[in-house]
Amino acid sequence: MSASSKHPQYELLYHPGIPGRGEFIRLAFEAAGVSYSDIANESSEGYGIVQKVTMQQNSIESDAGNPPIFAPPALRVPGAGPSGRPLVISQTPNILQYIGAKIGLVPDDEVGRLYVNQLTLTALDFNNDAHDTHHPIANYLYYEDQKETALEKAKDFRENRVPKFLSYFARTLKWNHDVGKGKYLVGDRLTYADLTVWQVVDGLKFAFPKEWQARSNEFEELLGPYYENIKTEGGLKDYLTSKRRLPYSMGVFRYYPELDRP
Amino acid sequence: MSASSKHPQYELLYHPGIPGRGEFIRLAFEAAGVSYSDIANESSEGYGIVQKVTMQQNSIESDAGNPPIFAPPALRVPGAGPSGRPLVISQTPNILQYIGAKIGLVPDDEVGRLYVNQLTLTALDFNNDAHDTHHPIANYLYYEDQKETALEKAKDFRENRVPKFLSYFARTLKWNHDVGKGKYLVGDRLTYADLTVWQVVDGLKFAFPKEWQARSNEFEELLGPYYENIKTEGGLKDYLTSKRRLPYSMGVFRYYPELDRP
Repeated sequence: MSASSKHPQYELLYHPGIPGRGEFIRLAFEAAGVSYSDIANESSEGYGIVQKVTMQQNSIESDAGNPPIFAPPALRVPGAGPSGRPLVISQTPNILQYIGAKIGLVPDDEVGRLYVNQLTLTALDFNNDAHDTHHPIANYLYYEDQKETALEKAKDFRENRVPKFLSYFARTLKWNHDVGKGKYLVGDRLTYADLTVWQVVDGLKFAFPKEWQARSNEFEELLGPYYENIKTEGGLKDYLTSKRRLPYSMGVFRYYPELDRP
Repeated sequence: MSASSKHPQYELLYHPGIPGRGEFIRLAFEAAGVSYSDIANESSEGYGIVQKVTMQQNSIESDAGNPPIFAPPALRVPGAGPSGRPLVISQTPNILQYIGAKIGLVPDDEVGRLYVNQLTLTALDFNNDAHDTHHPIANYLYYEDQKETALEKAKDFRENRVPKFLSYFARTLKWNHDVGKGKYLVGDRLTYADLTVWQVVDGLKFAFPKEWQARSNEFEELLGPYYENIKTEGGLKDYLTSKRRLPYSMGVFRYYPELDRP
C-alpha cells in the first residue's frame, strides 16, 4: 500500500538508541505499514530537534503554537494542528489513540475502542512497574546506588505484579476467544492494545528470562501462540528483524540477573 | 438542570471511604452537575458489588459481557454496552475521556481534546509518583516497613518531580492565558484536565504542606488564583463542602511529616 499518499509524514520525537516508550509508537506504524520519521535515530542533528521540542523546561510552547511537553515521546504531525500548523502531542497512550484511529489499529465501534484504550493503559502501567524494579528510588541515581531496594522491589514485581498483569491479559484473551481466536485481545483484528501488551511481554522476556519461562507454563496461550503470532502481523515480521528494531540495553527493560527469579 | 432526564445513571465502582483514584471521576460528575451513584459509599452491600465486578482475579468477564477489569476504579453505564447491555470500563483516564465528552468537560475540537488527555495522563503520573513516596517498594507492605526507602523517595519527589510537574502545568496555564485567562489549562472553559490537575495539587497540599507552601511562591498563579478558582466551578463549590467529599486519610495522599520538606 502506498501509505505516503494518504497519510501525513508522522514524526516520532524520542530519545535515540533505545526502544523505550518510543517503541510502542514505532510498533504501531510498523505493523500498519505507515511511513514515519524516527527523528533522533535518523540523523545526527535529530536529537537536537527532539530536545528543543520536548525537553525545554522553561518554554511555554513546544512548537508551532502547541502547549509544552512534559517528556518524550511526542508525535509531530505536519498540517494537523490548529490553523494547519503542525500538531505536537505527547503521552504514549494519547499518541497511540490518535494514530491508532488513523492507521487502522482500532475496532470500528466506540465500545471496542474503550476496551483497547483500557488494555493499553494497563500494559503501560506494567511497563512502568518493570522500569521501577531497577530504579525504585530515583531516575537520576545509578542502579548500583539503589540496588538493595531494587532487589526487594523486583521480588514484589515477580511475585505479585507479574502474575496479576499476565492473568489480566490472559483472561481478556479468553474473553475475546470466540471473536479473536486467541490472536487478538479485542475484536477480530490487530489493535494497538495487542502491540502494547506484546512489547511489554517481550521486554519482560529480555529482562526477566527465568521469570518469563516459569510463567509461560501458567499463561500458556498468552506467552505461547498469542505472543508468537503478533510477531507475524502486518509489517512486524520485517520490522523485528530490521536494524530499526533497537536492542534492549539500558532503558526500561534491563537484564540484571540478580533481579530475575533465583 | 435536570441531569437525570438526559444522562444514564452512571455508576462509579471504587473502594469505599477514600478519595483515591475514584475522586477524579467524582469531581467530573460533581463539576458537571450530573447525577451518579458511588456504589461502595452508598449502601452497605455496595462494596460487594464493586468487588464482584472489578476485583475477581479468576473471571474472564467483569459483568454483562464486558472484559475483565484489572483494578478499580471502573464505571458502569446502563444501556451503553454491546447490544444495549451495561458498559463496564476501567482505567481512570479512559473513564474521564468517556464521560468528559458526554457531560461537557472537553473542548469541541479534536486538538483541544488531545491536549486535555495529555495533561490528564501527566497529572495521573504525578498522582502515582505521590503514592510511591510512601510505598516505594510494595503496596502490600506497611509504610513502617519501607520507611527508610520512603524518606529517600520523598526527597527525590520533592526536589525533582514536584517542580518538574508543577512547572509543566504552570507553563501550560501561561500558554493558554489569552484564551483561558488563567482559569483553564485548555480552551475557555473547564475541562477534566483542570479537575485532574486540581485534585493532585490539592492532595499534595494535604500530604506535603510545607513543600506546597514553599512552591506556592514559585508557581504563584497555578497554586494561587488558578487553584482557588477551580473550587468555585460548576457544582464543585457545593461538593467540596459536602459529606460526599471524603477526607484524605490512608489512600494515595497521606500526611507523614517526615516525608515533607524539613
